[in-house]
Amino acid sequence: MKSILLPALFLSAALVARAEIRVQTVEYKDGDTVLEGSVTWDTTVPGNRPGILIVHQWKGITDYEQKRAEMLAKLGYVAFCADIYGKGVRPASPQEAGATAGKYKNDRALLRQRVNLALAQLRAQPPVDPKRIAALGYCFGGTTVIELARSGADTAGVVSFHGGLDSPSPADGKKIRTKVLVLHGADDPFVPAKDLAAFTAEMRDSGVDWQMISYGGAVHSFSDWNSKGPNSGGAAYNEPADRRSWEAMKQFFAEIFR
Amino acid sequence: MKSILLPALFLSAALVARAEIRVQTVEYKDGDTVLEGSVTWDTTVPGNRPGILIVHQWKGITDYEQKRAEMLAKLGYVAFCADIYGKGVRPASPQEAGATAGKYKNDRALLRQRVNLALAQLRAQPPVDPKRIAALGYCFGGTTVIELARSGADTAGVVSFHGGLDSPSPADGKKIRTKVLVLHGADDPFVPAKDLAAFTAEMRDSGVDWQMISYGGAVHSFSDWNSKGPNSGGAAYNEPADRRSWEAMKQFFAEIFR
Repeated sequence: MKSILLPALFLSAALVARAEIRVQTVEYKDGDTVLEGSVTWDTTVPGNRPGILIVHQWKGITDYEQKRAEMLAKLGYVAFCADIYGKGVRPASPQEAGATAGKYKNDRALLRQRVNLALAQLRAQPPVDPKRIAALGYCFGGTTVIELARSGADTAGVVSFHGGLDSPSPADGKKIRTKVLVLHGADDPFVPAKDLAAFTAEMRDSGVDWQMISYGGAVHSFSDWNSKGPNSGGAAYNEPADRRSWEAMKQFFAEIFR
Repeated sequence: MKSILLPALFLSAALVARAEIRVQTVEYKDGDTVLEGSVTWDTTVPGNRPGILIVHQWKGITDYEQKRAEMLAKLGYVAFCADIYGKGVRPASPQEAGATAGKYKNDRALLRQRVNLALAQLRAQPPVDPKRIAALGYCFGGTTVIELARSGADTAGVVSFHGGLDSPSPADGKKIRTKVLVLHGADDPFVPAKDLAAFTAEMRDSGVDWQMISYGGAVHSFSDWNSKGPNSGGAAYNEPADRRSWEAMKQFFAEIFR
């Protein structure tokens, strides 16, 4: 509406055009277990910049997470795709994915350890400003970044996209020292009302700086463009919720990194 | 983070500096009842532009609503402060305010009539593009703009800031043909869980394009800088929730007016 939008958009388009996105595989370890993540950044952005940890859905790192990393790199961030499962552990079927994700959901100590190892990798990447770090995750990864917060990790913020919110140890909410943004499908059948109520109580009792956005008409996986099919299946891509949640994330980052 | 932010901010500051905000009282009528609203706009912004209806809290139009109108005018909108109660009806005490607001909450037909009359006034203001209209309201005004939506009014969107969400006729959700954004204090004791559940069901059953943001640690009146005192009183200003909800509103307007 204001004329200032035009030059800003023009410059932005020019910057995007000259972005040079680089992706590098990063091997790291948890004891004897080899983990394989990746770091993605724009080599044309000068200087140190905030780092964003991305935690994958239940099938491990896929093209989806890598595409999100590129989108974040184009916004000027350094993105690191965490590998929770281990090198080569990339379950192909829903059954395998459910079993693998379940292993970590049922062992929150191991889950916290793996996500904190990935966070340390992100922090050590040369273009990252180690004081400006956030984490985000999708579905299983959303659960994981909330668990990262509950581990007491020192980040500026965590963002869950359609993640599970349950906790076997709600008292751990008191360890949270980061801002929390939950992006939630209002019709998500995999996040039952009792989990929402328990999560709200955990955040409230712990005095956490938290927010939740509920997107009407959206179910599980609303941001995942690979999730075809009707809402009745319980998981489906939802374009408005995808777009709005991405904008909400950008706004959150603008606040925590200002 | 990107260098484009600098020229944009610089230009923006320059524009704000030269804004010329004009406020004009507008008398209009509901039968024999005289209503007194106001229109606020920036005379330096060229051309027609979106119009935003502002519906007041339980004390009627105060300096608070007028200040919000100026803030919207500085963003380039035409703002119209609706008068639901009638000229000179400006209850001073909480008791009077509660009684006056209650009169309209208990007569939703009258409430819808009054808010639609204000909407017509906004639409008729010369600098307003009558095809790009939204409504927002605070507390009682939040309830009112949701009621405006339920009346089937033709707007691009409505935004409720800490408004009540109950409805005596949930089937009216089916009349809604505007986007709905609810900005809610997660600890607001005046919006009980049963109202949230009923509102969610109403929106879901009606297929409305709706979103709700819950701000942790925020109670009723979170955006009202005149609301002093502790959260334990149930109504209190909350700076982060105020700032974030204003940004969410701007993002919503950017979407619906694009």
